[in-house]
Amino acid sequence: MVLRKVCSGVSRHKLAALYPVFATYHRKILMKPTVNTNRLLGHLNSLAKIGPRKDGGVCRLAFSKEDLEGRNYVANECRKLGLEVRIDPIGNLFGILPGKTNLSAVMIGSHTDTVGTGGRLDGALGVLAALECANQWVEKGEQPARTLIVASFVNEEGVRFMPDMMGSLFHSGKIDLQTVVEATDSNGITVGEELTRLNYGASGSTSAFNVGYFLELHIEQGPELEAENLEIGVVSGVQGLSWQEVTVEGQANHAGTTPMHLRKDAGAVSTSMMSQLRLLPEEIPGLRLTIGSVTYEPNLINVIPERVQFSVDVRHPDEESLKTAEARIRGILNAPSVCSVTVRSLARVEPCQFAQTVVSSVENAAEGHGYAYKRMISGAGHDAQILSTMYQSGMVFIPSRGGISHNPAEYSTPEHIVAGANVLYGAVMELMNRGD
Amino acid sequence: MVLRKVCSGVSRHKLAALYPVFATYHRKILMKPTVNTNRLLGHLNSLAKIGPRKDGGVCRLAFSKEDLEGRNYVANECRKLGLEVRIDPIGNLFGILPGKTNLSAVMIGSHTDTVGTGGRLDGALGVLAALECANQWVEKGEQPARTLIVASFVNEEGVRFMPDMMGSLFHSGKIDLQTVVEATDSNGITVGEELTRLNYGASGSTSAFNVGYFLELHIEQGPELEAENLEIGVVSGVQGLSWQEVTVEGQANHAGTTPMHLRKDAGAVSTSMMSQLRLLPEEIPGLRLTIGSVTYEPNLINVIPERVQFSVDVRHPDEESLKTAEARIRGILNAPSVCSVTVRSLARVEPCQFAQTVVSSVENAAEGHGYAYKRMISGAGHDAQILSTMYQSGMVFIPSRGGISHNPAEYSTPEHIVAGANVLYGAVMELMNRGD
Repeated sequence: MVLRKVCSGVSRHKLAALYPVFATYHRKILMKPTVNTNRLLGHLNSLAKIGPRKDGGVCRLAFSKEDLEGRNYVANECRKLGLEVRIDPIGNLFGILPGKTNLSAVMIGSHTDTVGTGGRLDGALGVLAALECANQWVEKGEQPARTLIVASFVNEEGVRFMPDMMGSLFHSGKIDLQTVVEATDSNGITVGEELTRLNYGASGSTSAFNVGYFLELHIEQGPELEAENLEIGVVSGVQGLSWQEVTVEGQANHAGTTPMHLRKDAGAVSTSMMSQLRLLPEEIPGLRLTIGSVTYEPNLINVIPERVQFSVDVRHPDEESLKTAEARIRGILNAPSVCSVTVRSLARVEPCQFAQTVVSSVENAAEGHGYAYKRMISGAGHDAQILSTMYQSGMVFIPSRGGISHNPAEYSTPEHIVAGANVLYGAVMELMNRGD
Repeated sequence: MVLRKVCSGVSRHKLAALYPVFATYHRKILMKPTVNTNRLLGHLNSLAKIGPRKDGGVCRLAFSKEDLEGRNYVANECRKLGLEVRIDPIGNLFGILPGKTNLSAVMIGSHTDTVGTGGRLDGALGVLAALECANQWVEKGEQPARTLIVASFVNEEGVRFMPDMMGSLFHSGKIDLQTVVEATDSNGITVGEELTRLNYGASGSTSAFNVGYFLELHIEQGPELEAENLEIGVVSGVQGLSWQEVTVEGQANHAGTTPMHLRKDAGAVSTSMMSQLRLLPEEIPGLRLTIGSVTYEPNLINVIPERVQFSVDVRHPDEESLKTAEARIRGILNAPSVCSVTVRSLARVEPCQFAQTVVSSVENAAEGHGYAYKRMISGAGHDAQILSTMYQSGMVFIPSRGGISHNPAEYSTPEHIVAGANVLYGAVMELMNRGD
């Protein structure tokens, strides 16, 4: 407490590094709950063997046999610890360790489904670190002050069945059972059919529990922590997102015979728009803008493009800035041109701010361990963002090497994995000890 | 001659429209050889019935059964007129009407193959108008001063077998027989196999004849004549062409989690290049620049583009200007960027200037008829461009409705078709009467 005052504005781990006396004090008095490194890494290795890819990656597409096996692995490990396992009708899994009090429960977890070219950590880390936290209480023979729930939500990735974050959306009541079971893949197969075929869902729920908090450990999936040589990201929110699809229609014509001034070139018009759009991040600080998909028709070297379709993905942590970006995009796309332009909104998600209580618990845990950390915004969407409307929520990030994810090359060091789990555990401890 | 002096710098047909006295004079003294409208339009209709498409277009891909039938139609019509028909080893067809003198021959014609989605006029008009010119001498029972050769060259379009303008390239010795017979389509079938299967080629040639001039009537395939309300284009040359393929390689990354300053966005880099390239026509007058083909990889809305490939098609009537454009393109593509950039040349054709004698003969014929005309450069490639290295060559253009060609909607009015044939006939008359 004294140190906290003295060092306001200065990261304590930096101060501890500079002054050994502080370092000693710092190590002694701040909470440093630590997890079992080998056990956690062992579980990660075991889960990565379910749905393995030859290139070292993992493929456990939601509602597949491999996805079910992955979930069964987690359920069995929960049962080994004596946790009560409940599975809801779409397969969301909850391992429950009852608390000593009637205070609201702390839920921790993530997902175990992957994209087709997935890595070993995206989702899996959050679930297995949660399992490891529960293990800490179990092996000490202690009962947590509040009920602890290890959660694994289905279909976070949304690769085969839309929407993504389906499990947390269903859990938080934002989509109903019918919407989930009627979701259809590109071959016309529904989630309902897969649930039946695999005997995937059950009728359990967490409705009997009063959940107060949700915490998720995840890899960053971006390059910021690595670039700044940090160990932990204290996630204060998730940026909002706006996706639009732009179609520019002109007239196909002979590239050799059509004078420049008589052209209705969908390529020229769309390129001009894209150039202007790409300047917006300079104008609106914090904006991320990506034009990831561009298709030309007829796409021939000697024919003036008749039709160009492109996507615009903008993201910002602040809703007002996101609206400003959308207005500027409209202005650019609606400017007069020789082509006709149509715009379709594909997705819109408001930014989410995590609960201050939970963000502080994460920050305190990172401080307690002396990890190099910063507060940051998540660039990607996560279950915690959906659950934040129900529960006081937060997230812990660890660095992703090269910022790479959704790829077999996805990697975080064992040290960072353990650091993330330690911070998760420490934050859970702080929330357990709260009186509310 | 008097009028010509008086009106120097002023189109005579305009003057004739303003002053009736000039119009009378103009009609009387200038040459107005005219073709048989119904016969020409009849032949066009008949040839369009060979390889018909349901949408009103025509498909006679080179070295197909339909292409052979189209060529046989022309050969038979030539024989009906008493012309000697010679067919060379790859199927180039020559109908010969011997002249009264030993002066060099006048060759006129075009091609009868089409693209897959062809129209009724591209190529066919030039061949059938040539046939009609020959018919004029035959029905008058006259012998032309010079030998007249009606020519139809094979595979001008180059759709199934590359290169395009194959027949005229072979005729002018720029490619040899082996190159032609070994040309292979996408299914691995060679021209040689098709020549044998269809009994297509023979052993005739025009080598016994001393050809002095080549003239080709063709639809414009562009919008200029229509836009300026003109009836005839006096083609003074064909623009040169340079095709390049640009590959920009960056790094795929998550659109949400990757800060703008850490991106290697192949889309951003290529868009910037394209924007700069598109300004070149303003900088280099007369330059036509087209970016017709653009492909993104992985082409996903929420992934930063890893690889963008795009084409650059530039054309100019002047070789020096084309070289300037190529140098400017190199400068733009070689500028430092966060991505790696590779450039491959796909095609390079120097501009061609037609012979002044032939261009003047076309202009005089247009004047003689009082047609509204202008001198112009061909934007597309034609057999006449290849033959111009062997023979003094020229071309006559008529307007294409909407500038559309290579399309079933390709159309020119009967009036323009007849005007074009009249100008061809008049130009041939003038060349016949030359003493050289």
